Amino acid sequence: MENVELFKQLNEKLLVNINGDIFRPDEAKISIFDRGFLFGDSIYEVCYGVKRQLIFFEEHLNRLFNSAELIKMTMFLKREELIQQVFKTLKLTAWNDTYLRIIVTRGETAINLDPTLSFKNNFVIVVGEKPQHPSHFYKHGIKLFIADTLRNNPKSVDPNAKSGSYLNNVMALAEAKKVGADDALMLNHQGEVTEGTNFNIWLVKDHVFITPPSKSGLLKGITRQKVIELLKQNRLSYSERVIYLEDLLQADEVFITSSTRGIMPVQKINQTSFGRSHKAWPHTNQIAHLLQELIKSTSKGMKYCY
Amino acid sequence: MENVELFKQLNEKLLVNINGDIFRPDEAKISIFDRGFLFGDSIYEVCYGVKRQLIFFEEHLNRLFNSAELIKMTMFLKREELIQQVFKTLKLTAWNDTYLRIIVTRGETAINLDPTLSFKNNFVIVVGEKPQHPSHFYKHGIKLFIADTLRNNPKSVDPNAKSGSYLNNVMALAEAKKVGADDALMLNHQGEVTEGTNFNIWLVKDHVFITPPSKSGLLKGITRQKVIELLKQNRLSYSERVIYLEDLLQADEVFITSSTRGIMPVQKINQTSFGRSHKAWPHTNQIAHLLQELIKSTSKGMKYCY
Repeated sequence: MENVELFKQLNEKLLVNINGDIFRPDEAKISIFDRGFLFGDSIYEVCYGVKRQLIFFEEHLNRLFNSAELIKMTMFLKREELIQQVFKTLKLTAWNDTYLRIIVTRGETAINLDPTLSFKNNFVIVVGEKPQHPSHFYKHGIKLFIADTLRNNPKSVDPNAKSGSYLNNVMALAEAKKVGADDALMLNHQGEVTEGTNFNIWLVKDHVFITPPSKSGLLKGITRQKVIELLKQNRLSYSERVIYLEDLLQADEVFITSSTRGIMPVQKINQTSFGRSHKAWPHTNQIAHLLQELIKSTSKGMKYCY
Repeated sequence: MENVELFKQLNEKLLVNINGDIFRPDEAKISIFDRGFLFGDSIYEVCYGVKRQLIFFEEHLNRLFNSAELIKMTMFLKREELIQQVFKTLKLTAWNDTYLRIIVTRGETAINLDPTLSFKNNFVIVVGEKPQHPSHFYKHGIKLFIADTLRNNPKSVDPNAKSGSYLNNVMALAEAKKVGADDALMLNHQGEVTEGTNFNIWLVKDHVFITPPSKSGLLKGITRQKVIELLKQNRLSYSERVIYLEDLLQADEVFITSSTRGIMPVQKINQTSFGRSHKAWPHTNQIAHLLQELIKSTSKGMKYCY
């Protein structure tokens, strides 16, 4: 029953806003006719706040509305209304560093796949304390496993829409957990490296930072974009290009980027090791430091304070 | 607000069982931490009853448990318990001909993709009156559109798992609705015909009934299987083989099979027409008649009475 306890511990301090009303986690419920529940017909974003200032919130909002466009979801919910509800919820929390998840669905309809039956959105906002990832991941790197599960083909379900039809990634993570890895990396049907279950992947080879391009089929992460901007600003060499598993395994350094995890070095991919301490990832540490500085300065901003 | 009224009308007479408790539709709610809502991490079945006897229920149950296996969902919920809950719910309904939807999820967990955190299932059973499909679909056929959206690659999300990550099909149906078609047909990434958004496809050419094989990437429908058995029993020629769009467009007859719709002729695929009245589909009518007889005799059974 370990997982029961974990669930209770992690969730008891969350606060949930459903369509404008605030609930405790155990009372936070949605209609079973909601299309998010029936069909995974929803979109979402996860971001976080540091020192009561949401980090890169504008970018997350933009991506949420872009996801809506990609899955042709009518946004009855206006941007201003959503922002207001987010801050209404955040202001109720005592934590300075917060976790924020926004889910928007096509609402409840008659049980029918047809999305044109939608006449409303439902939205759910979850806020809580920003989770701490184990420090050894940052010091010694994480272990990745190349899943047999291939990333969704963009012609089937576009990975650039951050949607609630997430079983593809769940299956990949299940594979990784089974072999004792920390997380999974996914290839596309042409053998190109795409992304992890909820992070982007980077390699460094001969001082060049390299990450797969959007056309390989991946979600363009906010942190991925910030890293690209930082590399440009600091005149560090980088390239967005198709990479294969061999490129990764022959890299000098590998790291991941994600909004919640920031930058984490990769210690192992399947049987290939990359290093044992943070000293083994000099380029990774360099860009991680630049990102930390950027987040620090962003957290001193005033626009998205709560 | 037409869709609001439609939603109200269709749903007001439903009955919902959530984890053993019975709810009216407007009170039927599930935790927002349920993995079905968060990640589309659920499986489901739709079947129906005729004259208070569930039709092909054993087959639907088998497929539900097969879906669980395919997505590696631990079934804390036992088969006998589920059957008991289904009949408890059905016995409360006044209708003789019923609609039944069973949804099973990996339960609520901490918000984390990792499916090994699951320590329970949630189940939802929806029962209502069996919907009547417009009779003109049976007389004059339905209009299908070949979606640009490709069916999920089995190496990404196996279409043989009937899961709640259903956005792929939602997107295909959205395309069909946009051009005024009744439903969508999906190809795989190799251009092979797979299935519709929630039905299997058949063609008849030179008196041979042909349907795509499982390896093209499709859900093996219960009705599809019943049709195969009926064709065998009646010594009618049939073949499970890879078919392409050209095969369909050059067919003598095209029809669809689904549990809720039975057998429906296809009148049009994109710009290609197949016939204007039921007389134009002699083979389709022949097998539809055989299926009706099978359902009639099944409805006289006693095993799954409610």
